[in-house]
Amino acid sequence: MAEQKKGKVFLVGSGPGDPGLLTLKAKECIEKADVVIYDYLANVVFLDYAKKNAERIYVGKEGGHHTLGQNEINRLIVEKATEGLRVVRLKGGDPFIFGRGGEEAQELVKAGVPFEVVPGVTSAIAVPAYAGIPLTHRDFTATVAFVTGHEDPTKDTSNIAWDKIATGIGTLVFLMGVGNMAVLLTRRWPSSGREPFRGRER
Amino acid sequence: MAEQKKGKVFLVGSGPGDPGLLTLKAKECIEKADVVIYDYLANVVFLDYAKKNAERIYVGKEGGHHTLGQNEINRLIVEKATEGLRVVRLKGGDPFIFGRGGEEAQELVKAGVPFEVVPGVTSAIAVPAYAGIPLTHRDFTATVAFVTGHEDPTKDTSNIAWDKIATGIGTLVFLMGVGNMAVLLTRRWPSSGREPFRGRER
Repeated sequence: MAEQKKGKVFLVGSGPGDPGLLTLKAKECIEKADVVIYDYLANVVFLDYAKKNAERIYVGKEGGHHTLGQNEINRLIVEKATEGLRVVRLKGGDPFIFGRGGEEAQELVKAGVPFEVVPGVTSAIAVPAYAGIPLTHRDFTATVAFVTGHEDPTKDTSNIAWDKIATGIGTLVFLMGVGNMAVLLTRRWPSSGREPFRGRER
Repeated sequence: MAEQKKGKVFLVGSGPGDPGLLTLKAKECIEKADVVIYDYLANVVFLDYAKKNAERIYVGKEGGHHTLGQNEINRLIVEKATEGLRVVRLKGGDPFIFGRGGEEAQELVKAGVPFEVVPGVTSAIAVPAYAGIPLTHRDFTATVAFVTGHEDPTKDTSNIAWDKIATGIGTLVFLMGVGNMAVLLTRRWPSSGREPFRGRER
């Protein structure tokens, strides 16, 4: 009797978009994959590393428009792995920094599907670096925080302790904050006496 | 008259140690380098990517023991680039996360030496990921901070706002904290009512 072929899932961070910032391990995972399930934030040039006959499935969440909801994505990943396939779940940045990789990992544990996490270069670090901004510096700050910029600004209460992060952390990086930019920039930063960095004047 | 050959410096993050977590761009930089100036925290297997005749200079800072001080490292980088060489400054993790890359970049600006920063996978994210810990999770936390664990514990005053980071940030990651582990773990975390994660019992 043939043994059942066991699939495996790789939760892969593809970095911030620069094709050079993919890791060697991520490239190898894509090359060996039977299925690549990829996000809006993953650079599509990476799909060229996949085998010709590998299945490529787009599950992008672009702004408000979701191709598939998170539950459907979880189901799809488990389903493909259960068919015995090598599945790459390709994400922008790092899978565990605001990437919902934690939720996908939990689903894989529940379903008994073997998986590996392949960390990636996060845009939270790389984007400031490409703009010439070190997030830490011995002379200026010994703390840096990444904060979601995606919290619903119309909510009455915030899960973010604005007063503490404004005054207690040296460098703050907001991710997914474009939609809420106006709110983030005009927020009153209590007792910090500091203005958010607005980038260079043009 | 021959134009003077202009050197260039690449401040390269080599990731947390797993050879697979080097980026494609970092690998290419090493392959093309005339000189690789590398740290204790950079995995030495990466030196095999360098040209046979490339100069390899160890400037490691291992615990308290410094091969070269930071000022000497800065001078060395500038000197090699000024000779017209392609210099890779190879660091563990990411150059701008507690890597003193900011200081080296400043020296290069001062000296008028062209340079690029190549972000890397930071151990602050990859090490917890390999241990199965997502630093953010939609159901649990929307903030994560990296904090130096290297501050002199005998100092009277701390530059770290312990009360605010303990109660205002969801996930805290301490880097370079092994020497101060006992202090970090027994620190009284004011009003958070929370205990630091101590890892699995053995």
